Amino acid sequence: MSLDFGPATALSCRECGTRYDLGPSFACLECFGPLEAAYSFGDVRREDIEAGPSNIWRYRSLLPVPADVATKPNMNPGWTKLVKAGNLGRALGLKSLYVKDDSGNPTHSFKDRVVAIAVEAARNFGFHTLSCSSTGNLAGAVTAAAARAGLDACVFIPADLEQAKIAMARVFGGRLIGIDGTYDEVNRFCSELIGDPLGDKWGFVNVNLRPYYAEGSKTLAYEIAEQLGWRLPEQIVIPIASGSQLTKIDKGFKELIALGLVEDRPYKVFGAQAQGCSPVSAAYKAGHDVVQPVRPDTIAKSLAIGNPADGPYVLDIARRTGGAVEDVTDAEIVEAIKLLASTEGIFAETAGGVTVGVLKKLTENGVLDPEAETVVLNTGDGLKTLDAVSGDAQPTAVIKPSLDAFRAAV
Amino acid sequence: MSLDFGPATALSCRECGTRYDLGPSFACLECFGPLEAAYSFGDVRREDIEAGPSNIWRYRSLLPVPADVATKPNMNPGWTKLVKAGNLGRALGLKSLYVKDDSGNPTHSFKDRVVAIAVEAARNFGFHTLSCSSTGNLAGAVTAAAARAGLDACVFIPADLEQAKIAMARVFGGRLIGIDGTYDEVNRFCSELIGDPLGDKWGFVNVNLRPYYAEGSKTLAYEIAEQLGWRLPEQIVIPIASGSQLTKIDKGFKELIALGLVEDRPYKVFGAQAQGCSPVSAAYKAGHDVVQPVRPDTIAKSLAIGNPADGPYVLDIARRTGGAVEDVTDAEIVEAIKLLASTEGIFAETAGGVTVGVLKKLTENGVLDPEAETVVLNTGDGLKTLDAVSGDAQPTAVIKPSLDAFRAAV
Repeated sequence: MSLDFGPATALSCRECGTRYDLGPSFACLECFGPLEAAYSFGDVRREDIEAGPSNIWRYRSLLPVPADVATKPNMNPGWTKLVKAGNLGRALGLKSLYVKDDSGNPTHSFKDRVVAIAVEAARNFGFHTLSCSSTGNLAGAVTAAAARAGLDACVFIPADLEQAKIAMARVFGGRLIGIDGTYDEVNRFCSELIGDPLGDKWGFVNVNLRPYYAEGSKTLAYEIAEQLGWRLPEQIVIPIASGSQLTKIDKGFKELIALGLVEDRPYKVFGAQAQGCSPVSAAYKAGHDVVQPVRPDTIAKSLAIGNPADGPYVLDIARRTGGAVEDVTDAEIVEAIKLLASTEGIFAETAGGVTVGVLKKLTENGVLDPEAETVVLNTGDGLKTLDAVSGDAQPTAVIKPSLDAFRAAV
Repeated sequence: MSLDFGPATALSCRECGTRYDLGPSFACLECFGPLEAAYSFGDVRREDIEAGPSNIWRYRSLLPVPADVATKPNMNPGWTKLVKAGNLGRALGLKSLYVKDDSGNPTHSFKDRVVAIAVEAARNFGFHTLSCSSTGNLAGAVTAAAARAGLDACVFIPADLEQAKIAMARVFGGRLIGIDGTYDEVNRFCSELIGDPLGDKWGFVNVNLRPYYAEGSKTLAYEIAEQLGWRLPEQIVIPIASGSQLTKIDKGFKELIALGLVEDRPYKVFGAQAQGCSPVSAAYKAGHDVVQPVRPDTIAKSLAIGNPADGPYVLDIARRTGGAVEDVTDAEIVEAIKLLASTEGIFAETAGGVTVGVLKKLTENGVLDPEAETVVLNTGDGLKTLDAVSGDAQPTAVIKPSLDAFRAAV
């Protein structure tokens, strides 16, 4: 088997630095720390990136994928809009605000980014089945990507997910297994399955393919910087589920600095959680370095990971960059979804309500600098979490088709 | 009031050719024919287009919009993916098939394209409120665009629409009025409202702004041609609601030929309807030039226009180009949604089921040439018409988180 991961040359333990050959491994044999992709970057230039396709493959020289990745059947996610959010900024009192709107991805969440990288890893390793544990968005992204790539799919979700996410994961034709339990139990089950003959030749995108998969989140950092005109934002608000996205965005920013693609200037990273699943926020506020697992209870199901693997790294990054971690209630999430929709025409899923809600709270509390250039992430689509706004989802009025009826109604 | 519609210089009657100054007019005073934008194009070059933004404004020199349109708050739709659909092509026996996937637009339907143009017209005319009659997708596109642009919105829909479309139209904060009646009744009501003081300074995107609005559909033609490498497809399958989209795609192709941007070669245009609302298909099959209105009864609600304004033009185009008009049953629509999803990872709304269903039917009947380069449109998103697939939208199995339980289930 000849592997081609482009600029990625090895896996490296995040804790102890031990290096391993590229393979479907995810935990260090020395210290059980998580493995991540290590690179030997060539000469990466802005012009080459700008001449690339309007998707994440414009950054292929910074990702663990072969150089010809764009020629293979793939969902080609990314290059989503960075929306100058003048109306929302004015509403909140922020001078320069942007929304990175990842609902524009093929299955309408940022998960298409990470899955696209995992598909290439699965191809490299000769896997025939794509799998995952998922809070919903990932399941749809995996089954869609498997359909496009011609792989089988078998994905695992908590059985109580939103109907839209179940329907979306199912329509692409893979097997969808509901688990009676929380996401964390689904996740543990998948780890067991990897060691079982049943799971042979299966690529679990967020377990045994995780070192590759997780790198997909770096593309959010690259796109934001390029879309700002090759500049890092001064402040960024990112949702926390496992925490991986936040840590990889930080990694992406650091790579851009190291490669001389952007100016080295300080940026502050802010993490956002739902109060009903806020173990990282709780640890941040208590000044702890470790994260105490919780049992999630929030409408922000895509962030409902009670035992976030990258929690400690998130704490490090928030503290190192001068950022913070904050949480908002379910009511504040709904209010923030409506605020974003009515000011910018962006219909976010509950996770986007969490980031915009935290943005609002941190601005009101004076933690965010209202003069600094700020980016807030919307990582999913309101159509998948309709229940959050369904209380108001009725026409203003229902009338007969006559002017008199309309006059009476308004 | 100084108007700036870029290359558009007048309105012109589609029937009798009478020309009018640019204004919020939509019907010819001589013959009641529909008005459309007339242009004086400058020197339009591929390089200038290619250097433009990744949205419809790359074609601003071909649209009734000012040159600085991209600097104003707008949803910036378009530049959606043209997916090389190798899997679906193999399943149907088509050698070279592409799906133009307009679910990638900001509110996940092609309507964002037309509304974006209407917003510029509303600004030009100093209107304060954006309005429309809608089968659902348009309502969401209008309320979102109004929020972004800082305009008021008041939109009108049949009261029995899909919940997702109602929720989406509502969340952006405009007024949403449900009408007890069909879309055609909603449409007639809006025409009355335009003549009433209640509707003063209102831009009804698909009535008094229609000559501008409708031009937005030309961008589908431009994008398909550019994404194919500046080449027209040999066959294209387009859904028919009012028929406007199909006629404008044909107009766009003809403009590209006239401007020397693509080679002048024949292309065949195929129209697709749901059997439960197939007045154009019925007229085509009967060899008629006029379209007999029907009362719609189909799950493809976004195409449920029983009295399609552009029906006769569609018949002309299908016949002139050597295409056809065909229809499929609701069951075939659902089957086609699943086929597209499971082969290409694209979750289409019912309108996409109509085009893919018609593609399948025309291929099986030998009407489509299996060797010819073919494009099929998906104009909306499956998340908005979940009911169509909800019968199967359950997990394959629900189990306890244990390997034994999984073994028993598979």
